Amino acid sequence: MVAALDASKVQITKTTTPKEKLPNDQLVFGKTFTDHMLEIEWTAEAGWGTPKISPYHNLSLDPSTCVFHYAFELFEGMKAYRDKDNNIRTFRPIKNMERMNKSAERIALPTFDEEELLKLIDQLILTDESFVPQGAGYSLYLRPTMIGTTASLGVGTPDKALIYVIASPVGPYYGTGFKPVALEATDYAVRAWPGGVGNRKLGANYAPCILPQLEAAKRGYQQNLWLFGEEGYITEVGTMNVFFAFKNADGTKELVTAPLDGTILEGVTRDSIIQLCQEKLSSEWTVNERKFTMAEVKERADKGELIEAFGAGTAAVVSPIKIIGWKGEDIEVPLAAGDSGELTKSVAEWIRAIQYGEVEYKDWSRVAK
Amino acid sequence: MVAALDASKVQITKTTTPKEKLPNDQLVFGKTFTDHMLEIEWTAEAGWGTPKISPYHNLSLDPSTCVFHYAFELFEGMKAYRDKDNNIRTFRPIKNMERMNKSAERIALPTFDEEELLKLIDQLILTDESFVPQGAGYSLYLRPTMIGTTASLGVGTPDKALIYVIASPVGPYYGTGFKPVALEATDYAVRAWPGGVGNRKLGANYAPCILPQLEAAKRGYQQNLWLFGEEGYITEVGTMNVFFAFKNADGTKELVTAPLDGTILEGVTRDSIIQLCQEKLSSEWTVNERKFTMAEVKERADKGELIEAFGAGTAAVVSPIKIIGWKGEDIEVPLAAGDSGELTKSVAEWIRAIQYGEVEYKDWSRVAK
Repeated sequence: MVAALDASKVQITKTTTPKEKLPNDQLVFGKTFTDHMLEIEWTAEAGWGTPKISPYHNLSLDPSTCVFHYAFELFEGMKAYRDKDNNIRTFRPIKNMERMNKSAERIALPTFDEEELLKLIDQLILTDESFVPQGAGYSLYLRPTMIGTTASLGVGTPDKALIYVIASPVGPYYGTGFKPVALEATDYAVRAWPGGVGNRKLGANYAPCILPQLEAAKRGYQQNLWLFGEEGYITEVGTMNVFFAFKNADGTKELVTAPLDGTILEGVTRDSIIQLCQEKLSSEWTVNERKFTMAEVKERADKGELIEAFGAGTAAVVSPIKIIGWKGEDIEVPLAAGDSGELTKSVAEWIRAIQYGEVEYKDWSRVAK
Repeated sequence: MVAALDASKVQITKTTTPKEKLPNDQLVFGKTFTDHMLEIEWTAEAGWGTPKISPYHNLSLDPSTCVFHYAFELFEGMKAYRDKDNNIRTFRPIKNMERMNKSAERIALPTFDEEELLKLIDQLILTDESFVPQGAGYSLYLRPTMIGTTASLGVGTPDKALIYVIASPVGPYYGTGFKPVALEATDYAVRAWPGGVGNRKLGANYAPCILPQLEAAKRGYQQNLWLFGEEGYITEVGTMNVFFAFKNADGTKELVTAPLDGTILEGVTRDSIIQLCQEKLSSEWTVNERKFTMAEVKERADKGELIEAFGAGTAAVVSPIKIIGWKGEDIEVPLAAGDSGELTKSVAEWIRAIQYGEVEYKDWSRVAK
């Protein structure tokens, strides 16, 4: 009998040596962690084992474990926010669970009941509730992770796996307000391709991204913009989805992002922005998921039709873009609101208000209890 | 001052609880390991630390370590063979070290002096010399591995890393003689792409390969054959390079394998086969690294011009192919020597004789001392 994941069986062992909490201004993304972590072991024979919340500790693994050799690993990125009533809220966490299961399926790791893992994550959040920072832009970054733990060098389906969740108190991605970034368009390296795994949140998609980012940094750009194919389709920026806003000759405007064609990460922030913009923007706007190229961006920038552009992801929510280096030339992106475009600023605020529970919108904000 | 890798500094701590050795017929690939392992830590600040050979043990790593999240990991596969004078020999190990450094560069992990790591691997082999099995087809499989060990969720260049080497006594890939395999050509999933990392031995290339292998297995095929592009170019088989032999109307013959265009793993066995065949085959043969398609294989099989085909890699050396399923049809590959083609059989024997030190060829066999 193979057991399903069951949150009600959780065993909680509390730390006897609580950590000192850092002041908000010393928080570095993903560097310090809370007192506890969540773990659930899986075996092909027995299914999901007893969920355990216990003091944060090292993982002890045989050096032949498949996660070290064949990248049997996937993760999610989520944040928990403290609202004005001191509730702790997560933002559309079911989307992360659904994506995590899709990632697991793609590399032959086990799937799980999504609501059960959310209940366990809520338990972890409540156990470490005192680590969720106060203040605008502050949150508790959550990192659900799944690794294959079979100790064998044979390349095959793992018969053992581990879900674990760790949590790191984090500050706003930009110290005060926005800091628009300069991007370099990358055409010599390719992040993802049709028939590949670029639409899944696998470890495999990340290590190969560092070199192009280092190359961009050498030439003074903070991030790279991934192009695809001879056409130079715009796909993603660094580790975020990307949006461009154009105005047309007739005064109408368009917000555009690459379609989910299998090469694009299915970002929760991306999906949220599309939905919010479809609902909130005036009738002069259309919101499109369509293919578009670097050449189109350049042409419309030259004609004065590029309004603004931004990256979108959990860490920064939205990240305004000021410059794109392409074929030895810098394309300037307008920053009508100072450090970002007007739409970029609005989108960031719409999402922030939902995340911090100031505005209730659909079922997007989940209160941990 | 950043230290280079220095084999002369090795510290050896021997086990006090030696393991029982398994009889040859109980050896399973990559499942049991020798008494010791080699480790060398690296930091950006200090460079390569003191190499340590110590009893085989678990790795203890913070759950935020970048190897678990972003696949900062790469490996090599090598074998050590016992010759008739009880020397232990590795086969072209410098090729593995060169490839390991290329893999490291591609994901921003540190490189190292190749000869120094070989000296350390020799030390490990000699420390665990009693685990190198006797007998034709038996060997000690060596797994040099490098992982990023920075404990941080920030996606960036690791400032800490670990090389480790573990060793597993293994038997012949096929119990007695060859077992030709049936392949299914895969066109719905793509292993590698120009501008990607398919030519590097990264963990990232392996987990995504399981699903197509499971799909092939469902339909009764043992491995999958990776095609690329609308043209259906033949690239690799499972986790091996692949060779096809054709005869022409004029009686000449051709051995062909895919070229190193950035999407093909630069196999040591592949390279060895090309060199040996160029030297040893009669003048009626040509050996070509060129693009060729599944349609060409099918057409030539129909005309009776397909002579044989085999996969090539460290684990199996050569793996004869008997059937390729493509577009709902099974293409039969001749097996003139019974369980393989004649050339497949010769190639396997040429390489075996060098690996076991029966034939000295160039500097391809290195004696550990």
